[in-house]
Amino acid sequence: MKINTNPPKGMRDLTPQEVVLRNYIRETILEVYQRFGFSQIVTPVMDDISILTSGQGGENEKLIFKILKRGEKLRLQKENLTENHLVDFGMRFDLTVPLTRFYANNRAKLPNPFKVIQIGSSFRAERPQKGRFRQFIQCDIDIIGNPNVTAETELILATTQALQKLDFKDFKVRINDRRILEHLAEYCGFETKDFGKVFIILDKLDKINLSGVQKELEQENFSIESIQKLTQIIESVTSKKLDFELITEILPQVDSQWVEDLKFIAQTVKAQSQDFEIVYDLTLVRGMGYYTGVILEIEMPEFGSSVAGGGRYDKMVGRFLKNQDVPACGFSIGFERIVQILEDKGFQPPKKGEKIAFLYDGKKESFQQILPKVQELRAEGKTVSIEVKRKKMKKQLDDFKQFGFDKFCIFRLNEPLEIKDLD
Amino acid sequence: MKINTNPPKGMRDLTPQEVVLRNYIRETILEVYQRFGFSQIVTPVMDDISILTSGQGGENEKLIFKILKRGEKLRLQKENLTENHLVDFGMRFDLTVPLTRFYANNRAKLPNPFKVIQIGSSFRAERPQKGRFRQFIQCDIDIIGNPNVTAETELILATTQALQKLDFKDFKVRINDRRILEHLAEYCGFETKDFGKVFIILDKLDKINLSGVQKELEQENFSIESIQKLTQIIESVTSKKLDFELITEILPQVDSQWVEDLKFIAQTVKAQSQDFEIVYDLTLVRGMGYYTGVILEIEMPEFGSSVAGGGRYDKMVGRFLKNQDVPACGFSIGFERIVQILEDKGFQPPKKGEKIAFLYDGKKESFQQILPKVQELRAEGKTVSIEVKRKKMKKQLDDFKQFGFDKFCIFRLNEPLEIKDLD
Repeated sequence: MKINTNPPKGMRDLTPQEVVLRNYIRETILEVYQRFGFSQIVTPVMDDISILTSGQGGENEKLIFKILKRGEKLRLQKENLTENHLVDFGMRFDLTVPLTRFYANNRAKLPNPFKVIQIGSSFRAERPQKGRFRQFIQCDIDIIGNPNVTAETELILATTQALQKLDFKDFKVRINDRRILEHLAEYCGFETKDFGKVFIILDKLDKINLSGVQKELEQENFSIESIQKLTQIIESVTSKKLDFELITEILPQVDSQWVEDLKFIAQTVKAQSQDFEIVYDLTLVRGMGYYTGVILEIEMPEFGSSVAGGGRYDKMVGRFLKNQDVPACGFSIGFERIVQILEDKGFQPPKKGEKIAFLYDGKKESFQQILPKVQELRAEGKTVSIEVKRKKMKKQLDDFKQFGFDKFCIFRLNEPLEIKDLD
Repeated sequence: MKINTNPPKGMRDLTPQEVVLRNYIRETILEVYQRFGFSQIVTPVMDDISILTSGQGGENEKLIFKILKRGEKLRLQKENLTENHLVDFGMRFDLTVPLTRFYANNRAKLPNPFKVIQIGSSFRAERPQKGRFRQFIQCDIDIIGNPNVTAETELILATTQALQKLDFKDFKVRINDRRILEHLAEYCGFETKDFGKVFIILDKLDKINLSGVQKELEQENFSIESIQKLTQIIESVTSKKLDFELITEILPQVDSQWVEDLKFIAQTVKAQSQDFEIVYDLTLVRGMGYYTGVILEIEMPEFGSSVAGGGRYDKMVGRFLKNQDVPACGFSIGFERIVQILEDKGFQPPKKGEKIAFLYDGKKESFQQILPKVQELRAEGKTVSIEVKRKKMKKQLDDFKQFGFDKFCIFRLNEPLEIKDLD
């Protein structure tokens, strides 16, 4: 019988070369985050299904891989059987919902504010497509307990520094405030209940342009007047470089503190680095409905959509804590996108020391004789693989090069060892 | 409504302190394995349920967390509904089954022999108990494509060196050969079909002693003569230090090559390090039925059961490759056990550079003013966390110490910065 040995649809086997790059990216990001005083936690990849479907995940809650109950708890012969009878756990679809559960569960043991790193796999049963996977890694930093925009500023500084360490330049940080966005919708005359729909359409601006946004809004039968007002404002702000003063000109009712806060973030970040842009973008939406203040995104010329996103979500952590509000904000790097861009660029992570293939005749006595020397080289930090010499040595040496070796050495009894370059 | 914010039963939230130790252990093991010329792969945590239930996992196949089908594929209103109708994927219960699938799927791209590292989570729906978790990490090395015992020798050298780097001494490597074990059972007169049962009972020797083994064998109604023969041999080999010559004395029919191979392994390993013991143990079983040759285990005085185990499984990889045999052997460190022993010992991983808490008055202007200095310190490799100074500073400084900071610095406008020790 021929067995299908592919990984599950939308998931991947990662070869040694792929893992080397991924480990380098993960370690680089982790190190930068740690230097900013963040510390890492790990949560299980599963959570109780009631936690995952508590309404924090928006559309992602529809994409949960669910775990079948086991043993006596699984009753298949029930009448009117539904999914709810069958499942107890689910695979996490992001790292934010587990973080809020973790915080509620471990709060007494944690510092305040809690500056936290998570690097781990999430799972979504999406239709697989290029660059989208059903198991994928996210790198999140979050600050729980700091109500001030110094928190957002630190998130941006840490995330951009991590990207710079990975040789990225010319990216653009876009910032907005969810409350200003809501104010804009209100000012144009949309009803509060329709804000979500309007924002989902506005979020497509990059892809379908302003005329597309206008068309989709019309299809939803919103008032022509509101649509016109909105498109006019968008046109006016995208035709010139928007400065913060313009916000209060266009939307005079906006709380001046929100504008001051955005200005503070932009100024402070710019003072640290001029190698990337940070801009105010009135049309930035961010998909998740749970944001309550500043929202953030990073885009790259190499990549169509954003490579990182986040914002403030002051109402979310408290949902597991008797509904008290806990200030929180986070920034998430789309790890798989970073990997893809670096792979497309042919980026090579720096080598860690020499890698030597030690060839011998395959005799057990020879193996014993070369071991002391090999172990000595390993103790010096070198990588040494003991391999049996093949007849077609040219092919064998080429293979070693392909798998990352840079030196080789042929063991012959009673002859001095000579380590040579592979090239 | 009070929501239960615990992780799923038998799974854990890991706090920052726990993650620091775990990262250190993982990196230490990974680095040693890499120096031996092994390279890392990653497979998805899920596999097709047909792969996971193909008979390679023994009892573990009963402990699979199964994934519910989604969308149209999930038909609940079917008559005579069984689990098989409902699930398509499952969570892996070890790293060996996914490795054999990976190898079959990617063989053309891989070196031969393939020396591979896997560090990742496995999942078993076991009854939770102390030290046993339903999501747990395993660290495996495997060599696929080398039929000689030089492979087993390298596995032992690499694994013991990793343990030594983690400050373990006084552990004991036990080796045996599954074929000798089978020979022993045959010699005592047990029937081939009963070998599995006999070995499961013999495997409990450590826990229930020889009298317990005898009792359980009797309960299974094996012939009194066979049981007597077996217990006599065990008694004779445990009362004195078993040397390899004794095997051929007790079991004269045993293939002398098997004994020579065990001798070679023990000798070669001993020549590299005298800091731990390596012994031949005729009663070593290893649970999994797929082993075909040498079997390995490491035990520690600090821990009741083994902390690492493995062996040769020449018939397993080929099952996904039109049943051609592919020589393979592996050694797996029980990561969670290592973590537990080191935590119980109060082991502290070495610090990575200074960790400074930078205290300021919470004013935005102050934040901007201290940033350049803070970024400079970070660029030097130091960890700096910017924190708002509280009124009760004594308590705040104590907290910093608890969370791993060793220095602090108070920012006051127009005053020189002074970084002080936290103690």
